[in-house]
Amino acid sequence: MTQKRGKFISLEGGEGAGKSTLLNGLRAFLEGQGIDLQLTREPGGTPLGEAARAIVLDPALKNMSAEAELLLMFASRAQLVREVIEPALAAGRWVLCDRFTDASYAYQGGGRGQPVERIEQLEQWATDGLRPDLTLLLDLPVATGRARAAGRGDADRIEVEADGFFERVRGTYRARAAADAARFRVIDASLTPEQVLQQAIDGTVHLLEDHA
Amino acid sequence: MTQKRGKFISLEGGEGAGKSTLLNGLRAFLEGQGIDLQLTREPGGTPLGEAARAIVLDPALKNMSAEAELLLMFASRAQLVREVIEPALAAGRWVLCDRFTDASYAYQGGGRGQPVERIEQLEQWATDGLRPDLTLLLDLPVATGRARAAGRGDADRIEVEADGFFERVRGTYRARAAADAARFRVIDASLTPEQVLQQAIDGTVHLLEDHA
Repeated sequence: MTQKRGKFISLEGGEGAGKSTLLNGLRAFLEGQGIDLQLTREPGGTPLGEAARAIVLDPALKNMSAEAELLLMFASRAQLVREVIEPALAAGRWVLCDRFTDASYAYQGGGRGQPVERIEQLEQWATDGLRPDLTLLLDLPVATGRARAAGRGDADRIEVEADGFFERVRGTYRARAAADAARFRVIDASLTPEQVLQQAIDGTVHLLEDHA
Repeated sequence: MTQKRGKFISLEGGEGAGKSTLLNGLRAFLEGQGIDLQLTREPGGTPLGEAARAIVLDPALKNMSAEAELLLMFASRAQLVREVIEPALAAGRWVLCDRFTDASYAYQGGGRGQPVERIEQLEQWATDGLRPDLTLLLDLPVATGRARAAGRGDADRIEVEADGFFERVRGTYRARAAADAARFRVIDASLTPEQVLQQAIDGTVHLLEDHA
């Protein structure tokens, strides 16, 4: 019998939105449903990707060009798709990924001003156009997220950006969610962790039914 | 008075072609002509680029996808152009670079089979289409080059490729040189180091005249 392809869920959101907490809660829920789950993250998730992540987040590389940043993100992503995500999905496993291509549209596109056509081209060939079955967007006012994230220790090269950068990131995420409502589920991240998790679970029900 | 823009020379060639020896000889010649010279290399030449180089050449990353390799090369290149090459040329300095974009056409295109249109797109926006004023191609039969390079110590992730890979690399370099004879100078790398250097010097004379 042919193995049924797994489902691919990505989590997106800015600083302090509670991605890590939700990731843990959603993982527990899905595994409780008998799902064989592969957790991964971007940038990273492979030896190549983790090395690229170290470059991208290095606070010492203050003059990194937006073009180099975009290319490093897609280098990590190209490898992650081929080494981890596609093999897992093909084997019937589900993949839960902390950020995916939407993050490049939001951060390198909205945040850094890289043209959307450029990102679309990279998406086509670096990931073979792979998109999640479901993208959970944790949405939160920038000031609230930054206040939550403060005091977490040393900020990385992207976390030190000004508020305007994160406003553009948030605006791009929200615009993408509005344009693709079938894939996105926007979650109000100002709610309690329990409420956030419940919204995420509600968002996965149709995937579980489809997979059953 | 407006600063006259510097000249940009790249050196290309396969394993064992004598690039390092020529680089040193050409540097001594140009500096002897009073040229203010910036030496650099690819991948590398900046902190970001050297970190990307370490990834690309790491023999442990055996399953690196061709897409990720191409993107890492252009990440390094995008940063090198903005951080080193363009500022140097704008300040009237000359740049002598150990490999440039032609190497991506040869290695990631010819060698790995990445589509040429993909590389052309990346060249356009990652480097703003910057091309050297002169490209010196050290051409050598693959077997000769590999015999020379043997015994240099541990081979990197690309040096361990099979002969067929390096034949495609050489073929791509030669085809590009034939298609752009105004920019390329093909040097028979089987000659003595002195003869190779003399051919390279002959190739730079028109740049020196133009710069004077």
